Order: sequence, then C-alpha cells, then structure tokens
Amino acid sequence: MAIVLGKNQYGKAEVRMVYVDRSTPVHAITDVNVTSQLIGDFTDTHLTGANDAVIATDTQKNTVYAMARTGGVGSPEEFALRLARNYVDKYEQVTGARMAVEQYSWDRIVTAAGPHDHAFSKGTAETRTAVVRKDGAAETVISGLTGLVVLKSTGSEFWGFPEVEYTSLVETNDRILATAVTARWLYTTSELDWDAAFTAVRGALLENFANTHSLSLQQTLYAMGKGALEAVPEIAEIRLSLPNKHHFLVDLDKWDLDNPNQVFYAADRPYGLIEAAILRDDAEVPDGAWEGIAAFI
Amino acid sequence: MAIVLGKNQYGKAEVRMVYVDRSTPVHAITDVNVTSQLIGDFTDTHLTGANDAVIATDTQKNTVYAMARTGGVGSPEEFALRLARNYVDKYEQVTGARMAVEQYSWDRIVTAAGPHDHAFSKGTAETRTAVVRKDGAAETVISGLTGLVVLKSTGSEFWGFPEVEYTSLVETNDRILATAVTARWLYTTSELDWDAAFTAVRGALLENFANTHSLSLQQTLYAMGKGALEAVPEIAEIRLSLPNKHHFLVDLDKWDLDNPNQVFYAADRPYGLIEAAILRDDAEVPDGAWEGIAAFI
Amino acid sequence: MAIVLGKNQYGKAEVRMVYVDRSTPVHAITDVNVTSQLIGDFTDTHLTGANDAVIATDTQKNTVYAMARTGGVGSPEEFALRLARNYVDKYEQVTGARMAVEQYSWDRIVTAAGPHDHAFSKGTAETRTAVVRKDGAAETVISGLTGLVVLKSTGSEFWGFPEVEYTSLVETNDRILATAVTARWLYTTSELDWDAAFTAVRGALLENFANTHSLSLQQTLYAMGKGALEAVPEIAEIRLSLPNKHHFLVDLDKWDLDNPNQVFYAADRPYGLIEAAILRDDAEVPDGAWEGIAAFI
Amino acid sequence: MAIVLGKNQYGKAEVRMVYVDRSTPVHAITDVNVTSQLIGDFTDTHLTGANDAVIATDTQKNTVYAMARTGGVGSPEEFALRLARNYVDKYEQVTGARMAVEQYSWDRIVTAAGPHDHAFSKGTAETRTAVVRKDGAAETVISGLTGLVVLKSTGSEFWGFPEVEYTSLVETNDRILATAVTARWLYTTSELDWDAAFTAVRGALLENFANTHSLSLQQTLYAMGKGALEAVPEIAEIRLSLPNKHHFLVDLDKWDLDNPNQVFYAADRPYGLIEAAILRDDAEVPDGAWEGIAAFI
Repeated sequence: MAIVLGKNQYGKAEVRMVYVDRSTPVHAITDVNVTSQLIGDFTDTHLTGANDAVIATDTQKNTVYAMARTGGVGSPEEFALRLARNYVDKYEQVTGARMAVEQYSWDRIVTAAGPHDHAFSKGTAETRTAVVRKDGAAETVISGLTGLVVLKSTGSEFWGFPEVEYTSLVETNDRILATAVTARWLYTTSELDWDAAFTAVRGALLENFANTHSLSLQQTLYAMGKGALEAVPEIAEIRLSLPNKHHFLVDLDKWDLDNPNQVFYAADRPYGLIEAAILRDDAEVPDGAWEGIAAFI
Repeated sequence: MAIVLGKNQYGKAEVRMVYVDRSTPVHAITDVNVTSQLIGDFTDTHLTGANDAVIATDTQKNTVYAMARTGGVGSPEEFALRLARNYVDKYEQVTGARMAVEQYSWDRIVTAAGPHDHAFSKGTAETRTAVVRKDGAAETVISGLTGLVVLKSTGSEFWGFPEVEYTSLVETNDRILATAVTARWLYTTSELDWDAAFTAVRGALLENFANTHSLSLQQTLYAMGKGALEAVPEIAEIRLSLPNKHHFLVDLDKWDLDNPNQVFYAADRPYGLIEAAILRDDAEVPDGAWEGIAAFI
Repeated sequence: MAIVLGKNQYGKAEVRMVYVDRSTPVHAITDVNVTSQLIGDFTDTHLTGANDAVIATDTQKNTVYAMARTGGVGSPEEFALRLARNYVDKYEQVTGARMAVEQYSWDRIVTAAGPHDHAFSKGTAETRTAVVRKDGAAETVISGLTGLVVLKSTGSEFWGFPEVEYTSLVETNDRILATAVTARWLYTTSELDWDAAFTAVRGALLENFANTHSLSLQQTLYAMGKGALEAVPEIAEIRLSLPNKHHFLVDLDKWDLDNPNQVFYAADRPYGLIEAAILRDDAEVPDGAWEGIAAFI
Repeated sequence: MAIVLGKNQYGKAEVRMVYVDRSTPVHAITDVNVTSQLIGDFTDTHLTGANDAVIATDTQKNTVYAMARTGGVGSPEEFALRLARNYVDKYEQVTGARMAVEQYSWDRIVTAAGPHDHAFSKGTAETRTAVVRKDGAAETVISGLTGLVVLKSTGSEFWGFPEVEYTSLVETNDRILATAVTARWLYTTSELDWDAAFTAVRGALLENFANTHSLSLQQTLYAMGKGALEAVPEIAEIRLSLPNKHHFLVDLDKWDLDNPNQVFYAADRPYGLIEAAILRDDAEVPDGAWEGIAAFI
C-alpha cells in the first residue's frame, strides 16, 4: 500500500474583469468573474516542489485579460471555451482545463433624455454561469444561473403528505411559494448560439414557475426543468436546486385578528431544499460531467 | 464621581415581513425589514433587572405584524411613523421611539400571456430605507436608499491633485467611475407623499450621476445631492456616502498589446470613500437627528 | 435660501495590511484594516472639480504602508494617531482627520516541537477597533471590539414585564443568554498604554457577562459597562450594542418528550437589540465624538 | 425520446441546534447546523404533486430535535449516521439519505475564579463537517473541516516555473504563504472513534503546514494530505482545496524605502486555488462518494 496523488487541478480563482465595448459611442459592458483551472501532469510540484511544468496562476490571470483584449469576451460559454482550448492546445503537460465564468447584469440608466450612452446601474443578484471542462478533445459545457429569486403569492398548496413520527405540519391549500433558483444544464454540443439558448431556458424556467399551480415544490421544479428541455433540444440534462424559502402566515388569533393570507413572516433558516435532475432518456452524459458542481446530489 | 446610565434604547431588530395586498386578483407585495426601538425611562431594568416598564421586544415584533394587518403597510415612512406614534401615545414610560424600515423591491414576472397576477421576481440589491425618530411630539424622518450600484464607462477624469509625500497616482482624462450609492435625506415635515418624494430624489440622483462630466467623485456627489434638494423642497439636508469602486485599466504593454480603456480589473479593497452633506443654508436640523446613522461623518 | 456643502470627509477605506515583525526568528504578525479620512477645506473639488487641495486617496493608501515601514504599527490606537497627526501637521488644508483601524487576531500554531516560530492560525471573529478623530489640536480616541460572541447556558431569567397589547411572551426563569458584543469606549486622553487598557476592558466585559445572574440583557449590559469603567479610569463613556441572539427551547410535547433546557433552536432573525451608554457623571464628552459610529443611539 | 426524472433528493437544510449537556453543573454545549435529505422513490410528487410518499421537510426538522433529545448529539458523524439510519430503516419509500452536519466551536470563558461552569465564547470560523450517505445498507462517511485559516510569515518559496506567454510573475525565495484550509476525507468504515480521528487529522494538517519548507502550495498540500493518511489508517482518500491567499510585498522603492518582507498588502481577489486528492493506491472509493461535495474536482 502506498500513498499517491489522485485527481488534481490548480489555477486562479475569481479574476474580476469589466470589459467595455467602445466600438460605438453607445458603450456596452460585460462584467465577469473568471476561475481558470488547469489539469494535467503536475506530479512533480506536489511531490518535490519542482515547478517546471507549472503555468503560474498569475499567468492564468494575465491570460484572461489578454484574451479579452485580443478577442473580446462574447458569451461566458464562448470565453470559457476559448480559454480552455488555449491551454490544452498550447502546452503539452496540460491535458485538460476547467473554466468557470460568472456574469453579472447591468441595466442602462434611463435619464430624462432617454437611455444613456455610457451610464449603467447594476441588475439583480441573478448570475449567469458557465462551466467548461475540456479533457483532451472532449469538451463539456454546463451553463446555468443562480440567485434568481422568485415568489408566488398564491397558487401553491401542500397537503396529502403522510402523518408519520414527528410530523406536526398542517396541510394548506394556499401558501406563498418562494425560492432562489439555481439551475445548471448540460449541453450536447460545444457549438451553439449560447445567448439565445440561455434566454430560452431562462424564459422557460420563469414561465413554468409562474404558471404551474403548485401542489409541491417538487412538482414546480419538474415543470421548470421539463420546460427548459423542451425549449432547447441541445440540452441533455438540467439540474435544479430550489430552496423552499418559507413564508409563514403570522397567527394573530390571540388578538382577535384574522389573517387571510396577508401578513407573512419571511424566515431565514431552516429552509426546505429540493434538488433534482431532469433529463432525456437517451441522453449521453459524460462520466464526471457534474463533478464539483456544488449543491447537487 | 459616579457611574451612571446614559442614553439607551432597546427593541426588536430585523422583523422580516412580506405583506400581500389581495384586494384584487392582481396581487401586490411589500417586503420589509423592520427594526423597532423604544426610548424612555428604563433605568430599573438596567440597574436591578426589574422589568415592570419593559415592553418586551417580542411584543414589539408582534406589533409590527398586527399593525400591518390592521392598517396595511403603505410606504416605509408611513409605517415607521405609525409604529412610533403607537408607542409614544400609548405608554407613559415610552418618551421616544426609533423605527427603521428597509424595503426590498420585486418585479412582476412577465410571461407569454403578459404580466402575471401573482408571480414576482426579486429586484436589485438597492434598498429603500426610512428612519423615524420620535421624541415626545417631535418627529424626524430620514429617508434613504442604499445598494444602488452605478457605473460610467467614460465621462470621468481625475487630475490636478498635488504631488505630495507618497503620491504615485498618475493623472487620467478617462476612467471608469463606479460607486454604490448610500443616500440619506432629512425631511422638514412628517406629512408628505413619501413615495412621490422618494421617486423624485432617486431620479435626481441617477440623472446627475449619469449627466455630470466628472472631474472628481466629490463633484459628482455634490451634483447628485444638489439635484435631490432641488427636486424636493421638503428636504433640509442630504448625506451621501460614495465608495469609489476602483476599476483599474490592465497594463498589457509587456505583451505588445494596447488597452484603449477596454479591459479593466474590478478591485474589491481598498476603495476610495467620499462622504458629504449638502443642505439648505436655512435648514433647521434637530440636534441628534443624524445620530446612529452609520457610515457618515 | 441657497444650497451649500455641509460636513464632508474623504479618503481610502479598508487598506488591508499584514505587518511582520522579523526582529527575531520568532516572528510576530499584525493584521489590520485601515480606513483613512481627511477633513478640511475641500469645497473646490465638490463645486468645480478642481483638485488642487485633494491629497489623493491613493496617496493615503501609500502612506499607511510607508508609515508602517518607517515606524512599525504598534497598537491600533497608536497607529491611528500617528496617521492623523501626519496629515494635520503637514498640510494646511487638512484641519482634521478620522482614522479607523480594525485588528484581527492570530494564534501561533503549536506543533509537536512546541509553538512555531513563523506559522499562525487565524483567531476568532472578534475584532479590535480604534477610531481616532483629530480636529486641529483636539484628539479623540474611541476604542472598541466587535464580534465577541458569548453565551450562557443558564443563569438568565426574564419575567415581570407588563402584559400589554400584543404581548404573548411567557416568563422564564432559565433561558440561554447569547449575544455578539459590540463595545466602544471613549478615552479622556490620547496618551496611554493602549494594549493594557484594551485587555482590562475586555476582561471586565467577559467577567461581568459570565458572573452576572441576569434578569434582563439590559442588566447584564449595564454590569459589563460599569465593570469596564471601573477597570480603566481613563475611560469617560462606554457604549454597548448587544443583540439578543435568541435560542428558543424546542417544544417536544406533541411526542411525549420533555425538554429540560437541553435542545434549543438558534434563531437568526429577528433578534432583540439592547443598546446603552454608561458613563461617569463628570465625563466631558466632546461634541460629535460619537458621530458616525454605527449601531448606536 | 422522452423527458424523465433523474437523481433527486429533498429535505430540510440548515437546522440550527444548540444542545446543552446539563448532566453536571459544568455544562457543555454542542452547536450544529444539520442538513437532512432523503433519497428514494419520489416520482409522484414530481410528476403529479401527489405527496403520499413525502416525509415532509418540516418532519425532518422535528426529527433532528427529537433525536437529539432522545439520544444526545455526540460527534457530527455519529449524529448524521443515526439520522440516516432512522429514515432508511423506518420508511419503505426511503432507500437512501444524505445527512450533512456542520459543527461550530465554543471555548469556556475563563474568569478570575477559573473556567466558568456555563459561560462560553465562540471559537474561530473553523467548522468541522461530516457528510453521511446511506444507500440501502451501504454507508459512506466523509468528514472534514473548513475555514481553518493559516499563514506562514516565511519558509515559502516559488520559482522555477516556465516563462511562457503572458507570464510576468517574478520568482521569490521568501514569501508569505496563507490559505484557508478546506479538507474532506473519506473513511473506509462507519464505526470509529470519530473525535479521535478528527483530532489526529487536524493535527497532521497543521503540523505539515507549519513544518513543510514550501516550494509550492501544491507541495504543502500534498504533505498535509499525506500526513493525514499516515495518521489515520481508516482514511481511504483526502481531498484538499487550498486558496492561495496572496500577500503582496508593498513596493516602497519610489520613496527610497526598502521593504525586507515586513509590509504586505493582503489581497482579496483573485486568488490562487490548488485542489488535489491524496489516496491510498489500494483504496476502494464507492462510485459517487464525492458527488455534490463543492469545490472539488
């Protein structure tokens, strides 16, 4: 029996970059957070500290900025693919790469004179994500979004669950349903109109959240995932992680006040957590495609 | 010389409440975080632990929910005033109150069938704030906003500063200017159309941020504050706290790449911090009005 | 009526610095976060954008590092005073300064061979703070600590409060008392053994939290503040802000289980918030000394 | 081609509990955060909203508290195993479970009279973790720790890396090495003295961090992992995720000041990120054991 080095990767995390497209006086900005990681034969540095093979993490940071300058950023998927290919194509010791990009949204400020050319205000906490893994020639693209907080003030029920040991919950035919959507979906291709696909998935998620009369958050989750798969044929599998952000009806009985679903206490913790994968039954999901994606089974 | 109790207040902080207006099938939601604090003669509990005078903080929490049920929430200023008056009017030992309300924004989800009746998505991190102090009959209302993150991709310069000991900064005629606006403004009245006033101030802040060709963040701050005072005559004083969220141009010279204000590194810390009050020269600002408002001089 | 510039200050916030004392092979580290702000006649930059008087915030950042190199850091109070004096003494337009220092603790790692010469692990979230204001010759030092989380598993009661409108809380003779201490104290001097004074205050706060049989958090607060004033005669006033971090006894009755103060739910929000000043009755507190100190009345 | 439900799990996340051992007047407290998730045949609720099989997440929350009352908490591993076994043994539709426990540390307050019986102060941000997966009879235990922040003020070098495209980093023979350790290790058994094993691993991690003269963070990581495996034979594999928390030497040359490794700027982002698994070459790692563990390859 010996102790050996297993899987490993290294790089620079959270390279924050704002890219300004100044090709016309009406500027556009792309605000991203890039985490670059390389995979390959890096045994030496682990065992002896010899760094001959190590593309410094500082170099990876510089590369993010330089490649934005030379080719722009485009969509997060596209930028992640360009970065991954750069390393695997260029360096013998680099057999793979994992590039993760988060993108934050900005809105154009509307002044009395109309939309402003170069003034912006930050959008919601919703973040668009892309994770690209390249292993030799194989490329896997997992896109997603996180921090999309949604709420329905009615149209949600929860009843029919078994009364077992330690059950005290009462059934309800009308509750607030609220969640912060984290979704990740795996494409079957690495060539696509990424922005169009993202828009279609996001739209399907929102449409199905809003329009599903919910009997459980699981049912809503499944409808959302199914909607996304139907909207974009190039998706093999989608995974959703939905915290059930509880809003408890405040009991005002003691003071002879009713509360017809008007006044709610928004709780922090604990919260329900519903997670599931929805996929095509003929989907070919590469081994390890989902490894290291947090918050999923 | 003796040791004595000085100023004091107590209450319940961060009472989270979502209020649903179901008066029509098109619901509206009000999402607030209320901090309730009472001021008065509470010496006994400090010195001996006798709680005869202490309106329990749990009772203050219940009051937030009950008063929302009986009178709705309305604007944060209005709700804070109602809460403060309730205590000072009702309890002899309560001579004053400080009520702080934060309000979070939600947008209606737009589905294929149009704006949804009862489905919402959370807005930006911008938070509307109101702090009401009531001392006997005197009422002070300070409204505000925080977390409004804005950025100009051009139209900002910084030069002409003295070169003194430890100066190494170089002048620039074109930089990104970005900040997260925290603004607080003091009204001369406690009767007003609070929503209209808030909208007018917010509009003036954005308009002047966008349209001021900036030679310093101080200049932009002053223009923003002046604009707010001009927009709403009932404001005596406004205070702004503006972090200068630095975006540094990445130097790509080493690799024979220019960088014509396109690729920026968005830094976390340290950041500049510019704070100032702008007021009418005839403003009567009550003693202590600004006490306990964080992040201001 | 005209609109005018009121109080203002500007500078560099959150300059993160680790200072290594390498005077012997047994290193010591000082880990601080410095916020430097200057006060004076800066009307021009606000009104016209002329920056002739403006010591750049970047220069203030450099000064933090350079003054650490030339004179070391020492205690946070001492470092803040050195920085403040530097600016007021050196620049005519700078009439005042506000320097805030946070210090984080590190422990020496103990290995099999004993305490290590140069390896450390980070301490608790407790942060030592110092805020120095200099207005011309006048110097005000407010020291403090924040993030000191403490809990008593018994020895705390709460009863005798009035049953008024919306009261539903039941009395208790035995509860968990937990809080996160934020304390700030104002010295009557700007020459002192700051480390010794800090240690004495901190000890008095902990001693009185632990040993007071508590009938209300207010009583515990007062005992803590009084203890601090008694421990260090150079303190004029101390202010404490104590969130009551509720731990609710879980009701297991429904399942025929008692719960003799063993199993508690640790709640996040809302929380009680108790704030008070304790001072000597002959204390001379400079006007505005407490301005801008968050979370206090 | 059809759309189908894939892997799924659901439960209650972040059940915060403080358990007080009052068996003697010298109390002890256990502070944990439990996330309970069930796995099994829950197709109905996803497809139709029928909840016949769904053990409500509220019931899972109650179970955490009730099982603490009936059997105490013990180590996080032990408590997670008890919870997992309870569900799989009791409910036909529950074929598996995933229980995650985080534990926070508290220190006894030392007063003038010695260690206090029932007063505590919160420890560092270091969190002990345990994740138990039960799939039918098979049980997998992954223990860990996160938030252990360590720093060496010398004894770290980085040189010998290749100068490739976009490299600008300069070599160094003496730098600060700092990281926040996240470690997770997989046991070969579900019966062990968990506390003793945890203590042994933690000690090995600290010992090897402190005593390794580091030529790369990879080398330090490998030494730490190897040390852990050597210390506890029941560990099959350990995974480490080590952010390289950069401390940059401040350049004071411009002002004729040297800086012999004394004054450092502690950067936030970006940061290096080094991740690797170290394992025994005969280790049998169950399929999917590491799924859903964040921040690892």
